[in-house]
Amino acid sequence: MKKLINKPEDVVREELEGMALAFPDMIKVHFDPNFVYRADAPVKGKVAVISGGGSGHEPMHGGFVGVGMLDAACPGQVFTSPTPDQMLEATKMVDGGAGVLHIVKNYSGDIMNFEMAADMARSEGIRVLSVIIDDDVAVKDSLYTQGRRGVGTTVLAEKICGAAAEKGYDLKKLADLCRKVNINGRSMGMALTPCTVPMAGKPTFTLGEDEMEIGIGIHGEPGRERMKLKTADEITEMLALSIIEDPPYRRTMREWDEAKEEWVDVTLEDPPFKAGDQVLAFVNSMGGTPVIELPIVYRKLHQVCEKKGLKIVRNLIGPYITSLEMQGCSITLLKMDDELIKLWDAPVKTPGLRWGM
Amino acid sequence: MKKLINKPEDVVREELEGMALAFPDMIKVHFDPNFVYRADAPVKGKVAVISGGGSGHEPMHGGFVGVGMLDAACPGQVFTSPTPDQMLEATKMVDGGAGVLHIVKNYSGDIMNFEMAADMARSEGIRVLSVIIDDDVAVKDSLYTQGRRGVGTTVLAEKICGAAAEKGYDLKKLADLCRKVNINGRSMGMALTPCTVPMAGKPTFTLGEDEMEIGIGIHGEPGRERMKLKTADEITEMLALSIIEDPPYRRTMREWDEAKEEWVDVTLEDPPFKAGDQVLAFVNSMGGTPVIELPIVYRKLHQVCEKKGLKIVRNLIGPYITSLEMQGCSITLLKMDDELIKLWDAPVKTPGLRWGM
Repeated sequence: MKKLINKPEDVVREELEGMALAFPDMIKVHFDPNFVYRADAPVKGKVAVISGGGSGHEPMHGGFVGVGMLDAACPGQVFTSPTPDQMLEATKMVDGGAGVLHIVKNYSGDIMNFEMAADMARSEGIRVLSVIIDDDVAVKDSLYTQGRRGVGTTVLAEKICGAAAEKGYDLKKLADLCRKVNINGRSMGMALTPCTVPMAGKPTFTLGEDEMEIGIGIHGEPGRERMKLKTADEITEMLALSIIEDPPYRRTMREWDEAKEEWVDVTLEDPPFKAGDQVLAFVNSMGGTPVIELPIVYRKLHQVCEKKGLKIVRNLIGPYITSLEMQGCSITLLKMDDELIKLWDAPVKTPGLRWGM
Repeated sequence: MKKLINKPEDVVREELEGMALAFPDMIKVHFDPNFVYRADAPVKGKVAVISGGGSGHEPMHGGFVGVGMLDAACPGQVFTSPTPDQMLEATKMVDGGAGVLHIVKNYSGDIMNFEMAADMARSEGIRVLSVIIDDDVAVKDSLYTQGRRGVGTTVLAEKICGAAAEKGYDLKKLADLCRKVNINGRSMGMALTPCTVPMAGKPTFTLGEDEMEIGIGIHGEPGRERMKLKTADEITEMLALSIIEDPPYRRTMREWDEAKEEWVDVTLEDPPFKAGDQVLAFVNSMGGTPVIELPIVYRKLHQVCEKKGLKIVRNLIGPYITSLEMQGCSITLLKMDDELIKLWDAPVKTPGLRWGM
């Protein structure tokens, strides 16, 4: 295992220490339990937005803490869910009196631990609503997940909801917005190479010299198909068409009902993409992909969208939800409207995403 | 060779096509000869800033074209110098009447071809001055270079000179500023893994499973030493101390003398770092490095700087001058003063670096 690390067990702590030293104007880091939070938290009267998940997907989520995006992020160990006490303490730290939105990626451990933290925070008098992101069209049910996994749309939901919170959306309206982003966003990824979790010391999976995995998860979970290596254009078309032609997707999720004061089942359906839609096109590097290759993927994605009548009105290209040194990419398309475009364009200042300030 | 590409010979063209499709508000791309230029070029009355070099180091340089940074960038084939006609046509395209600054990395091919382009542009009545960046303390003379190679400081020079050009610096003052950045910036890099040029199809060099190369060049040129893998802290300390303790470096460079109307030899000396200096600390990913590892390097760099009495006043952390999928990092320290800090903080809007707008 070749990595720029010291002891494998110190990777997350030392990464967080480095983040705190590098970005003191944007973030602070709390240790034991670990979480990253806005340097100016809590912001009185603003709904706070929190996310979290396993480490190894940087800059998500810690790199997205700052003005205009997240109020806090709770990193677990590499590819491991954070614990409820992390989310509870982060929630208490950043609540400015207007409540806290938890954005949760659909992995069984994350769901369970965020739910527990939300219950505990509510018992301490803090309003919490949770929205689950499940945007990966590749597979239904996977190694760590019931239903679809939460991937690239999470980054977009964090930016958009962060901007809306700055603009004064209340907790209920913010949760509705986050749900809207989730059902309008779809993703799919692929890998050319595996990655190695530091504590494991060996690759999570193996791929032959001429093989790739289509529909892979961000932890290297099996995807749709392992196949012979294809060209960038063929790969991009496969991913893009799987997303664009995905039929309406209906699932039931647990959400907190503030009126009933209990968790209830909510059924949501993703509307399909259709010609004439405006979309944000997100080409994400899995982490180890040469930067030169991303515009090559974007080029073909643009052509496929055009052919399908989708108009790309915004884009994001780079390593934003990664899998350590994995080479490969994922594509996310999010159907946009005026509200989402305005929120996307709003200023943001975080270590991992920054413009307008 | 596993890459997200189509035909190896189409990589650069398709990358540029993708860039043009993705960032039409910031850049345009000219083909045959190839160069990226500001969407609003030429900017009347502003000195234009141009750089260029082999592809494979993205986002440098094409990703740094836009308001507040470069007016144009000329990409060669992967790890290959651009040709004089690229720089000549780019120079003619972006000259707004106030002259053009060429920022040239110290590689023999780049030096020769930029010099030829500058002579041709002058013969067409355009004022051109050139400044060479040679900041890599690792080795003197290398596979492609006489003297020190041009690496990380180039990114900083492009940002700082781009901001100064926006603020109205004239050509002479801008060249002086660029020279000041060069002599106050020093870098050194290392690799854990090699990279593969698409047209070559096999790795540029090989490293054993427990080996790394310290002082490597951005094309995989040999560095100071190949040694057994060490920890991130040990590696960072080696790089940082090589930079901080580098003695005054004196060399002679060819520069255009506008009064004499000829190329003259200019001798420059890098002042050494000393306790009390304010620095910008730049931790650069070689491209394939997991994002989580960069703050671990920054953490130790911060500690070493503190011990040596250097105060980090600004930083930059991420993949900015890469070597395809190479895993590893480079460190650059630039001594800052009020002028450089102000220019660093100025708004910039490019595909690869963006804030304040």
